[in-house]
Amino acid sequence: MTIVTLKELADRLHCRLEGEGSLPIRDLRPLEAAGPEDLALVADAANFSRLAASRAGAVLLSETLPPVDRPALRVSDPHLAFARALALLHPLPDALPGVHPTAVVAPDAEVAPGATVGPLSVVESGARIGADSVLVAQVYVGAGVRIGTGCRIYPQVVLREGSLLGDRVILHSGAIIGADGFGYARDGARYVKIPQVGRVVLEDDVEIGANTAIDRATLGETRIGRGTKIDNLVQVGHNVTIGEDTVIVSQVGLSGSARIGSRVTLAGQAGIVDHVTVGDGAIVGAQAGVPKDVPPGAVVLGAPAIPHLEFKRQLAALARLPELRKAFRALETRLTALETRIDG
Amino acid sequence: MTIVTLKELADRLHCRLEGEGSLPIRDLRPLEAAGPEDLALVADAANFSRLAASRAGAVLLSETLPPVDRPALRVSDPHLAFARALALLHPLPDALPGVHPTAVVAPDAEVAPGATVGPLSVVESGARIGADSVLVAQVYVGAGVRIGTGCRIYPQVVLREGSLLGDRVILHSGAIIGADGFGYARDGARYVKIPQVGRVVLEDDVEIGANTAIDRATLGETRIGRGTKIDNLVQVGHNVTIGEDTVIVSQVGLSGSARIGSRVTLAGQAGIVDHVTVGDGAIVGAQAGVPKDVPPGAVVLGAPAIPHLEFKRQLAALARLPELRKAFRALETRLTALETRIDG
Amino acid sequence: MTIVTLKELADRLHCRLEGEGSLPIRDLRPLEAAGPEDLALVADAANFSRLAASRAGAVLLSETLPPVDRPALRVSDPHLAFARALALLHPLPDALPGVHPTAVVAPDAEVAPGATVGPLSVVESGARIGADSVLVAQVYVGAGVRIGTGCRIYPQVVLREGSLLGDRVILHSGAIIGADGFGYARDGARYVKIPQVGRVVLEDDVEIGANTAIDRATLGETRIGRGTKIDNLVQVGHNVTIGEDTVIVSQVGLSGSARIGSRVTLAGQAGIVDHVTVGDGAIVGAQAGVPKDVPPGAVVLGAPAIPHLEFKRQLAALARLPELRKAFRALETRLTALETRIDG
Repeated sequence: MTIVTLKELADRLHCRLEGEGSLPIRDLRPLEAAGPEDLALVADAANFSRLAASRAGAVLLSETLPPVDRPALRVSDPHLAFARALALLHPLPDALPGVHPTAVVAPDAEVAPGATVGPLSVVESGARIGADSVLVAQVYVGAGVRIGTGCRIYPQVVLREGSLLGDRVILHSGAIIGADGFGYARDGARYVKIPQVGRVVLEDDVEIGANTAIDRATLGETRIGRGTKIDNLVQVGHNVTIGEDTVIVSQVGLSGSARIGSRVTLAGQAGIVDHVTVGDGAIVGAQAGVPKDVPPGAVVLGAPAIPHLEFKRQLAALARLPELRKAFRALETRLTALETRIDG
Repeated sequence: MTIVTLKELADRLHCRLEGEGSLPIRDLRPLEAAGPEDLALVADAANFSRLAASRAGAVLLSETLPPVDRPALRVSDPHLAFARALALLHPLPDALPGVHPTAVVAPDAEVAPGATVGPLSVVESGARIGADSVLVAQVYVGAGVRIGTGCRIYPQVVLREGSLLGDRVILHSGAIIGADGFGYARDGARYVKIPQVGRVVLEDDVEIGANTAIDRATLGETRIGRGTKIDNLVQVGHNVTIGEDTVIVSQVGLSGSARIGSRVTLAGQAGIVDHVTVGDGAIVGAQAGVPKDVPPGAVVLGAPAIPHLEFKRQLAALARLPELRKAFRALETRLTALETRIDG
Repeated sequence: MTIVTLKELADRLHCRLEGEGSLPIRDLRPLEAAGPEDLALVADAANFSRLAASRAGAVLLSETLPPVDRPALRVSDPHLAFARALALLHPLPDALPGVHPTAVVAPDAEVAPGATVGPLSVVESGARIGADSVLVAQVYVGAGVRIGTGCRIYPQVVLREGSLLGDRVILHSGAIIGADGFGYARDGARYVKIPQVGRVVLEDDVEIGANTAIDRATLGETRIGRGTKIDNLVQVGHNVTIGEDTVIVSQVGLSGSARIGSRVTLAGQAGIVDHVTVGDGAIVGAQAGVPKDVPPGAVVLGAPAIPHLEFKRQLAALARLPELRKAFRALETRLTALETRIDG
């Protein structure tokens, strides 16, 4: 942790300073836990109401919230400033550049000056690791893999042969990049493996969560676009393509050759059927099952997924279905009574 | 495997011995597979009916079942005695205490006497490993991690920096403890990473399954309470808290800041939305999707999850919906006929 | 990559050669990407219509498709020939037989001549690795594990003690074979671990995907039958048995003691409840939840899963439920009007 003054923070985060700028700031903490040398985020009106009870030395809040009783940083987007303040106060631990003596690096692999290959890692023939990239420990880098600059690869990540990473890519522990896609031909009742000889491309600023699997393509590429963020335990099948700035939440499954656009959100545990296209800016709800194309900007829910308003209408109708059945029986009785009277 | 007599087992498991106590017991096996030196569990009446055909030398069964034709251990809870008998007959393999010469341990890490750091493990600066804890092999222990006593960490587990483990914690292979939570601020269309600077706390007697991911908190803690058992491939998001003696079955997903009580059961593939509270003793069914708080003791099913009786009523109504539509058409026809007669 | 002539490919794939056989073939590529020395698969009529625009030097296609304007390989099953052609043109990288100096191998483990134990792997006491099997790197092989011949174990796979693998088994990175099953007895509110002392058996030609977990049995075996293919992130609980030539797609969950037949297909994210039997040749749809036995050959969908035709009928009825409610209200109004006229 680094200690800075509130004034320094204001300058570096482009916030407007209210009050005493010489206050030393040790950390960012939640309102309830913050002390006199901590900055606390006041994210919204609910937070604001709890401010009086907080011991926080200073607060970070929106320009639109009322005056406060202590030094403050004012900014139009406090969440963004919060992210940047955390990065300033908690810089990543320094990695010792160079190749750890216990790492096994092929003679023809290239490790750029300033890059780190941590203990017990394996770097195979022809791999190239860019400047300032860090393989923390126990990483596997297959033959011919190329890693850009400023990447961070956490312990026990596997990059199978030929994978291509841009700059500033982050891979969390247990992520498996470039394992074989799931493809077989039939030979009578038996399955014959279709060799998976394509590769995976992760563009700049992609982040991949723990224990997520991104399969290599059968032929060609599985490609994740710039700035896309993928959570833990996600499955990305072979030949999938994903656009830029898309967010994929934990445990989502993308079957082979699915095409996901840019600025899409796929919520937790959703599943996308193979060869389906999800258009730019679409939102797929949690646990949705998507069997056919989703237009750009659409919001879908359910399994099979349908437009969210339709889903909610069906859900409401289903909730009242037992009552409808009852009302139907009553109507039937009334009609029978009427028929009897007329016939009787 | 250890060999003991039936009498010794009776004494150590606090069972009542029926018949010959000098019988040597080599193993616990299923009724069908057991031989003359094996003990077999007779769990219930269905098992009991298959006992005559079994070659088992002795049986373990409830006090409430009828007399049997061979030596027996009687006890009020035979499942619990079965668990304890297995532990006696199959003690964990001895681990050679000390640090394996191929492990990479920081000079300022502390490995207690009696603890084992297995081959090709990495223990970073400031980490502390308690007495009788075993890192089997290829484990990663990040900076400042603290591991209590009597823990067992299977091969290829990752403990990211600052994680805190109580005593007797068991972590299965592929478990990732303390990877970054999934948090971003927006900067226009782009996402900016919110550094995840909190930690993970696993209290005493927690067990975590293979390839499960427990994310570190953004600020503060992700905490799993004493005695809670988590199966394989489960996702626990940042800042989640889980109480004591809770059971979470495979492939469940808990979104950020979910609060799960004590003695809760979450069945397989269920998903809990962020910030939702599940009360003590509640049961969430398999594949349920929980978008809002669940009261203590409630049993919910479906996606979105509703009380289980309501779910079953809706399900039954849905099954009969095609028939209701047909009955509706018939009623419509009868009404039209009646209208025609009256008007005609 | 190997270069062969079209004639050589025809001979080795048992295809009928049309046109010039001396054409050198460098690679198999999609129609759009193929050049004059590439072979392209024309899988169906849709592909065929795009053939004219392709620069592919030669094509692989069905005997039943019309004549083409360039050299061709004709065969009854072009997908199967495609799989075999890829294997010819992209042989697996050679592994250097023998034990890498950084591997940690117990003195009494047996590594057959021709087998490879890659860097930073651990092979425990009594393990046996058959001829031509390759442990690529950083693999863990527990005590007493037996691996047949011609297996390929990718980096960072864990095989816990006692696991038994047939021949030609492929395990992808992050797969955990033989972790403890999820079993506990109750001791009041607390859970007591039931030691899991059985094993996992993977028969010949099984392939297991990245980050998939196959739990060892409590007693006895968890068994995956010959030729069965399992995708990434699948959970197979303790004591599950799976037949031959079955396909299990990503993120499926099989609870303990489930029995899956031969030639079954379980689509993505489906879940099978414990002790349930799925009969030979059955198909379980994506995201289905299977709470009870599925007969051989059945096709089921939904959660809880029902026969697929019934599911589709219910789904259609649900979609028209809001309209049915409306029609019901109209009918009610007409009946009330009729009652009023008769009474009036």
